[in-house]
Amino acid sequence: MHSARERIYMFTDMLTNVQKNAPLIHNITNYVTANDCANALLACGASPVMADSIDDAAEITSSCDGLCINLGTLHRERIPVMLAAGTLSNKFKHPVLLDPVGVGASTFRMEAAKTLIDQIHFTAIRGNLSEIKALAYGTESANGVDAGQADQITEENLPALISFAKDFAGAFHCVVIITGIMDIVADTDTAYLIRNGHDMMRHLTGTGCQLSALTTAFLAANPEHAAEAAAAAVSMFGCCGEIAAARLSRSDGTYTFRNYLMDAVFRMTPEHLERSASYEIY
Amino acid sequence: MHSARERIYMFTDMLTNVQKNAPLIHNITNYVTANDCANALLACGASPVMADSIDDAAEITSSCDGLCINLGTLHRERIPVMLAAGTLSNKFKHPVLLDPVGVGASTFRMEAAKTLIDQIHFTAIRGNLSEIKALAYGTESANGVDAGQADQITEENLPALISFAKDFAGAFHCVVIITGIMDIVADTDTAYLIRNGHDMMRHLTGTGCQLSALTTAFLAANPEHAAEAAAAAVSMFGCCGEIAAARLSRSDGTYTFRNYLMDAVFRMTPEHLERSASYEIY
Amino acid sequence: MHSARERIYMFTDMLTNVQKNAPLIHNITNYVTANDCANALLACGASPVMADSIDDAAEITSSCDGLCINLGTLHRERIPVMLAAGTLSNKFKHPVLLDPVGVGASTFRMEAAKTLIDQIHFTAIRGNLSEIKALAYGTESANGVDAGQADQITEENLPALISFAKDFAGAFHCVVIITGIMDIVADTDTAYLIRNGHDMMRHLTGTGCQLSALTTAFLAANPEHAAEAAAAAVSMFGCCGEIAAARLSRSDGTYTFRNYLMDAVFRMTPEHLERSASYEIY
Repeated sequence: MHSARERIYMFTDMLTNVQKNAPLIHNITNYVTANDCANALLACGASPVMADSIDDAAEITSSCDGLCINLGTLHRERIPVMLAAGTLSNKFKHPVLLDPVGVGASTFRMEAAKTLIDQIHFTAIRGNLSEIKALAYGTESANGVDAGQADQITEENLPALISFAKDFAGAFHCVVIITGIMDIVADTDTAYLIRNGHDMMRHLTGTGCQLSALTTAFLAANPEHAAEAAAAAVSMFGCCGEIAAARLSRSDGTYTFRNYLMDAVFRMTPEHLERSASYEIY
Repeated sequence: MHSARERIYMFTDMLTNVQKNAPLIHNITNYVTANDCANALLACGASPVMADSIDDAAEITSSCDGLCINLGTLHRERIPVMLAAGTLSNKFKHPVLLDPVGVGASTFRMEAAKTLIDQIHFTAIRGNLSEIKALAYGTESANGVDAGQADQITEENLPALISFAKDFAGAFHCVVIITGIMDIVADTDTAYLIRNGHDMMRHLTGTGCQLSALTTAFLAANPEHAAEAAAAAVSMFGCCGEIAAARLSRSDGTYTFRNYLMDAVFRMTPEHLERSASYEIY
Repeated sequence: MHSARERIYMFTDMLTNVQKNAPLIHNITNYVTANDCANALLACGASPVMADSIDDAAEITSSCDGLCINLGTLHRERIPVMLAAGTLSNKFKHPVLLDPVGVGASTFRMEAAKTLIDQIHFTAIRGNLSEIKALAYGTESANGVDAGQADQITEENLPALISFAKDFAGAFHCVVIITGIMDIVADTDTAYLIRNGHDMMRHLTGTGCQLSALTTAFLAANPEHAAEAAAAAVSMFGCCGEIAAARLSRSDGTYTFRNYLMDAVFRMTPEHLERSASYEIY
């Protein structure tokens, strides 16, 4: 375990680069959380474009800086669109992120994920532990789009999960982002364990989708530092969850929390992230 | 008319069972209100999954506890998906709810509703009075997805509507839920007249869709008590509307109301529901 | 330049007519901002219906009072739906508005826009300056769905843009609405320069889409005064942005702003619009 201070590139630089470069992110995503994803990108200083027609996805992706592919509410016709945009983004060396929503819940989504991973080089894959395990082992869960009860990151299983994450990153040639009560971001060499975040985030739909969109913006703005950029995005969104939770009154619930969460993304500064980021490097 | 106190199962038990069993609800729904529906399910203690591809709807529904079919923004290709998921849910004895959005506004939606009702056994059907009348009589309204001016539940037409609701329940072999200024939930024997709710709810899109999703969770968590479970869901959501309205300041409008409404779903307790439920049984 | 006071029909009358007539607006729109568009229509006193199936779009449009066609997340299959609803709305003399989202970002959307404009008479076309320029000149931008840096309305380019807008209105036989830091609404004779609005609006996705939906309601409620109705809608939504921004605390960001923006649409009165509208007529 190293000190975070030994690193040359800090999370703060990662955020500064997003705010300075305002990357344009192409999203091929689901209709449930698309609005929150677009607003999360705008709030962090990036720009969103949603386009999932075979007739313009490739053209649009070529004028963007990064691509986020999300398997929520997947339809068969969208797979060729994802392949066209993904392979073209690879050619342009744009970062491409995969969010394998519910990949353990259906054979169709699993087969689609395999096809995508086979033909596209993903810079990063982000999911909950159930989804990442499903990709790694081909196992299925019976819990829809949320992580199963057994699939939580705990202090006990942490060493094993750090190894698992690094192995996954090696096998899939990508940065892996496993989110839950704690979050792990890993490439083959380095794993970030991130302790930011708040329990309220799991009572809200689409926080994972939003984080995937935000992470794509961080990857696009920091192309030389994929793992650290992803870790910065995860830590930042977790800090925003903490800020949002601290503003809640006793009558407030999930939608007031959602407002404060997005407000915090909009108000986030490199200085605040510097003060509040809580992580260890393994 | 009986006292609510004579009933063995109370609304409070219905809510407790949702929070304890955390049912996983499959939604085949529209893209306008899908996000609010997912968040309503999470807020009440259930879990949502949205999947409307012919390639995985059946597999996903088989690992869920209930199915909510909503006809908003209906497309032809989605009807076989609804039929596949609905008939499989019937086989598994999962509750299935139909929300016939805008069924009186288009022949296509009416034909689709008839096909679905013909092939799927619906545990419950929920709509405004225009939609339920359209299903009953095949009449059409010219008011889009909202109830027509004449189609409101009033003290005057109440006795006739109670009979209409019980007859509808008998003819369609389901619990019927008619929502408006007052709400009626009925099976062939018993009708609940529910006086909870607030006028602000009709100025917000998707409150009906959210209630349909919530009701499906109540049905799934209380399989032996369909009518009472549906009535508890309707009463609870109405109580949440009252709580939300009471928090509004003079500058607040529909979106602050939406926040407080969802917040109230998240904060709702069996004790609060016990105190605030306002209904009569016929 | 004339004084706004010389006009017989005031913005206040336009809003009063929306609130009095409660027009039913058919939206064929994208899945990213559909929810906000529906809620904006409800908040201003109109009613929304979203329907984009070839099987019922024409039937639904015929019982509505206006049609809003939005090219966001466009798919090929939706073009015949737009053509069917648009030509039928023309036959019924319902106003039809085009929002050419991202028309400069893809050849497919540009070709679709040309086909629609060729076959449908649009009462109004609303876009940012990049989109309107793309329609006028066939040029493409590389900035997704937001206006390019160079495409802002400033005091310097204002006289040229006023002429451009009037020419565009003449060439396309419609009212043109160009939105940005300032907004221009023009027919061939008259241009309104509107100075309402707030910078926070561009940090939120879908404010343009919402304005298009609102404008369609204003056109439907004021069929004899298309340019002034459109200008009233633009000014009103801008006033709502100002009200929303004034309510923000230092911790608030884009989602609290979104809430206050919609709240303000719901609370807007003709009297407030009278006091706050800021515009010049050229």
